[in-house]
Amino acid sequence: MRNIVARTSCFLVLLLLCTSQFASATRKTLNKEHPCKRFVLYYHDILFDGSDVANATSATIANETKLGDFKFGKLVVFDDPMTKDNHLHSPAVARAQGFYFYDMKSDYNSWFAYTLVFNSTEQKGTLNIMGADIMAAQTRDFSIVGGTGDFFMARGIATIETDTFQGDKYFRLKMDIKLYECY
Amino acid sequence: MRNIVARTSCFLVLLLLCTSQFASATRKTLNKEHPCKRFVLYYHDILFDGSDVANATSATIANETKLGDFKFGKLVVFDDPMTKDNHLHSPAVARAQGFYFYDMKSDYNSWFAYTLVFNSTEQKGTLNIMGADIMAAQTRDFSIVGGTGDFFMARGIATIETDTFQGDKYFRLKMDIKLYECY
Amino acid sequence: MRNIVARTSCFLVLLLLCTSQFASATRKTLNKEHPCKRFVLYYHDILFDGSDVANATSATIANETKLGDFKFGKLVVFDDPMTKDNHLHSPAVARAQGFYFYDMKSDYNSWFAYTLVFNSTEQKGTLNIMGADIMAAQTRDFSIVGGTGDFFMARGIATIETDTFQGDKYFRLKMDIKLYECY
Repeated sequence: MRNIVARTSCFLVLLLLCTSQFASATRKTLNKEHPCKRFVLYYHDILFDGSDVANATSATIANETKLGDFKFGKLVVFDDPMTKDNHLHSPAVARAQGFYFYDMKSDYNSWFAYTLVFNSTEQKGTLNIMGADIMAAQTRDFSIVGGTGDFFMARGIATIETDTFQGDKYFRLKMDIKLYECY
Repeated sequence: MRNIVARTSCFLVLLLLCTSQFASATRKTLNKEHPCKRFVLYYHDILFDGSDVANATSATIANETKLGDFKFGKLVVFDDPMTKDNHLHSPAVARAQGFYFYDMKSDYNSWFAYTLVFNSTEQKGTLNIMGADIMAAQTRDFSIVGGTGDFFMARGIATIETDTFQGDKYFRLKMDIKLYECY
Repeated sequence: MRNIVARTSCFLVLLLLCTSQFASATRKTLNKEHPCKRFVLYYHDILFDGSDVANATSATIANETKLGDFKFGKLVVFDDPMTKDNHLHSPAVARAQGFYFYDMKSDYNSWFAYTLVFNSTEQKGTLNIMGADIMAAQTRDFSIVGGTGDFFMARGIATIETDTFQGDKYFRLKMDIKLYECY
């Protein structure tokens, strides 16, 4: 009988050591298919043309350079509405505040850093996001690097897809927000 | 007796499984009230007016646009002293190096990304921070997304409060640095 | 006998509680010397001078200010090749897409945020990086704040060293990429 007890506890101590290993150095257990929180939002960007103050949600603050023909260096600051469906005039459930710039000389490509600001009865808090918008790809992934409020300390991936693009004036991105660390 | 041993080990294996779950997918155990490290610093920003090179700690690199009346798009780069109390001339215990820009057409609002650089006998290393400075709120939270040196791999929240604001020339923020992941 | 079982299970429950503590609040077990993944890449930056479109990989989008004599405020957007050795013409195994700006009035110093974009048969995905480039130091550390694709949810440190600097035209950085969280 003592034998069984000894063997059992030995086994359990080993299991415990394994568990603590995973928790510290190289955790390999996150499952891409099972985020702890997930939702889709649409991002609407209406670029200021110098006169439409009422409608515009973003403005160019540095002009494109002459490095190639794809707006290299054009820098845009935005305060864009985020909606649950892809209609521009649906109620905004969050704001996306940040910037993007174009950064390729041989094709359109850009880079984003921004904060999703939630301030409703449903959700309060922010998610901070950055990443390369590799426009040649059907979808591309940004990193969700931190969160506050209801998203306290969150991390995850935002998968981006261009939903529509109307010249220089308006574009819409679908953002599939997947959190893998929730607290 | 065998029964008890069996039941005990069964129970423990279940507990172990629960523990490893928490450690990998959706850890819900961080306590907002108990950071592993916490300290308050004051950030001092003296905007360059074109002549006060000796005193200025920041400079505008892109001018505000005409999108609204709240400096939308104005981009400022800074290398600002961080002090332990709210006196501008107290010794700097760190530098804040980074940028902010204004990003709202209907009110003052801004966005920050910067590094706190510590280089004293007390502390060496950096903390990397980003977030929306929702100026309409009494306090707002930025994400501490990484750290190096003495702050190796740290994550946390920096709670910001405007301590004073003197027109375009000078403003001071109180930053309550709370780390929830320390290594 | 009951006693032994009771004592054993008591001890194990205590151990379990300890393990879950480490996993949640203040994990202190990461070893700086043992990243879960490590590799070295070289970053090559050729600044656009207004005419060398074919060779240039970066462009100035905001000019330096008059705050000091060290290019304070100069903002550069880049899409730079990353190679395995320090030869500019070696095949690029990744692109570094992002920006840097100079931010000190008394010496050269800069700040970076960028994405390493991998798109080869060997590796697909991105690493998102930000930090202060304290040019006075022999090496300096940036934070790797997130990853996607093959680098899903990764975090770590990128240790930077200036490998060469040829005036305004070209510089090369050695980047020692160390991941401490791999999934």
